[in-house]
Amino acid sequence: MPLDDFRITSGKRFRLADFDPGSKPLSCGKKEEDLARIIELSNALDAQQDIFYAEHRRRLLVVLQGMDTSGKDGTVRGVFRSFDPLGIRVVGFKSPSPEELARDFLWRIHLQVPKTGEIVVFNRSHYEDVLITRVHNWIDAAECERRFRQIRDFESMLTETGTTIVKCFLHISRDEQKARLEARLADPEKHWKFDTNDLAQRKHWKAYMDAYEAAIMATSTPECPWYVVPADSKTHRNLMVAEILTRVFEDLKPAYPPARPELASTKVD
Amino acid sequence: MPLDDFRITSGKRFRLADFDPGSKPLSCGKKEEDLARIIELSNALDAQQDIFYAEHRRRLLVVLQGMDTSGKDGTVRGVFRSFDPLGIRVVGFKSPSPEELARDFLWRIHLQVPKTGEIVVFNRSHYEDVLITRVHNWIDAAECERRFRQIRDFESMLTETGTTIVKCFLHISRDEQKARLEARLADPEKHWKFDTNDLAQRKHWKAYMDAYEAAIMATSTPECPWYVVPADSKTHRNLMVAEILTRVFEDLKPAYPPARPELASTKVD
Repeated sequence: MPLDDFRITSGKRFRLADFDPGSKPLSCGKKEEDLARIIELSNALDAQQDIFYAEHRRRLLVVLQGMDTSGKDGTVRGVFRSFDPLGIRVVGFKSPSPEELARDFLWRIHLQVPKTGEIVVFNRSHYEDVLITRVHNWIDAAECERRFRQIRDFESMLTETGTTIVKCFLHISRDEQKARLEARLADPEKHWKFDTNDLAQRKHWKAYMDAYEAAIMATSTPECPWYVVPADSKTHRNLMVAEILTRVFEDLKPAYPPARPELASTKVD
Repeated sequence: MPLDDFRITSGKRFRLADFDPGSKPLSCGKKEEDLARIIELSNALDAQQDIFYAEHRRRLLVVLQGMDTSGKDGTVRGVFRSFDPLGIRVVGFKSPSPEELARDFLWRIHLQVPKTGEIVVFNRSHYEDVLITRVHNWIDAAECERRFRQIRDFESMLTETGTTIVKCFLHISRDEQKARLEARLADPEKHWKFDTNDLAQRKHWKAYMDAYEAAIMATSTPECPWYVVPADSKTHRNLMVAEILTRVFEDLKPAYPPARPELASTKVD
């Protein structure tokens, strides 16, 4: 199964350069068939989510990370939109507020973790605190290592207490980002999405890739793996995220709570 | 337009008995056509929501109230499921926790109000604090009147600061509730939804209807109207809620933020 090749469970042999953002390893080669497959998977996931919610026993956290324009919003829309809003919650993390900065970097994250039966998608996450912060040298290498350990400990606590964590790095190329930024500039209806800061961050592309590589190396474990999702193709990106979640639910095997025999004799007046 | 007849903007002439839970005022008479109309409205609402989110200027709060089994979850599923999860958030309010009880009854509500560009659906709300509490005489008439005023003041502050509030009472009959509870008892996969407390509350049906009537009378204003939604038919319930939201967006007229001329000359390196 090719999906395994994109699932990082240990930092040992991981090199980001081994992954081509333009590749489409899960594609059947025909876009229409890929799109049909996404809908099929998305509907099946929706059914699984209903049972997961009814089961009310475990929690699921999906972390989406990637450069600007890598498609975090688009993934939410393309993969999760058929889900019942009752059982899914999307949390976007922007620059921390003064209230948030006055605490440790995991505080605002902890406030938003899923509750029983819930699926939460993080659009950016605690990983920003070892990415943008490291690229601009707001933290030094020693502090970054300390945070890697704190993240491992935090995620491992969440896992041990019933949360499944799935981390996806949406991997686009610098050229694809250029094309997407230019498309936003060309469409007045997309100007609201354009942040001139994206251009500033773009100049640090190589440093970002190094920071992502280091973060993925340091925080990939069998329990909390990273997936590297080739994302130059939006269709492939959605397809792979849908396949990853399908795999996750195959492992989780959610089930309806047992019937309650005492209800057999209950009468409604 | 018949919708206006179900929109309560003043308590003066309101009588709950004037509304038949079994009626289907917005139905065309053919279930299949009603279902097709819901999908049509739901898709149009989804498009409006995208623009509302892009506009990033106003907020929308939808309050769903109703007796057990009245279809609050089903409305979320039937009307809101095609929405992009990025722009909608569903908040369920259950029995308050000790942390919540240690504050005023509006504290936990205020924490969950929508932010700019966001649509939030409350599955139950601050109205529980003038319903179940009043039915069981946990608060007296004077306290209930005080809360009505506090609710009016709170909602009016939210409205003045940019939030549109839409309140829907999903109105079912006692007989229809009986049928729905019996259906849950008959289906082992639905046992997880069955709460024996529902049977206890059911005994107070008349007191609940009086409490709903009093609450709607006291808190219906032109800015924060209540809608009484005949909900014995699930299809009609979804149809009416979809029509109500369509009307809301027709009034709001969300628009993309203006194009930014300075971006015309921006180059991506």
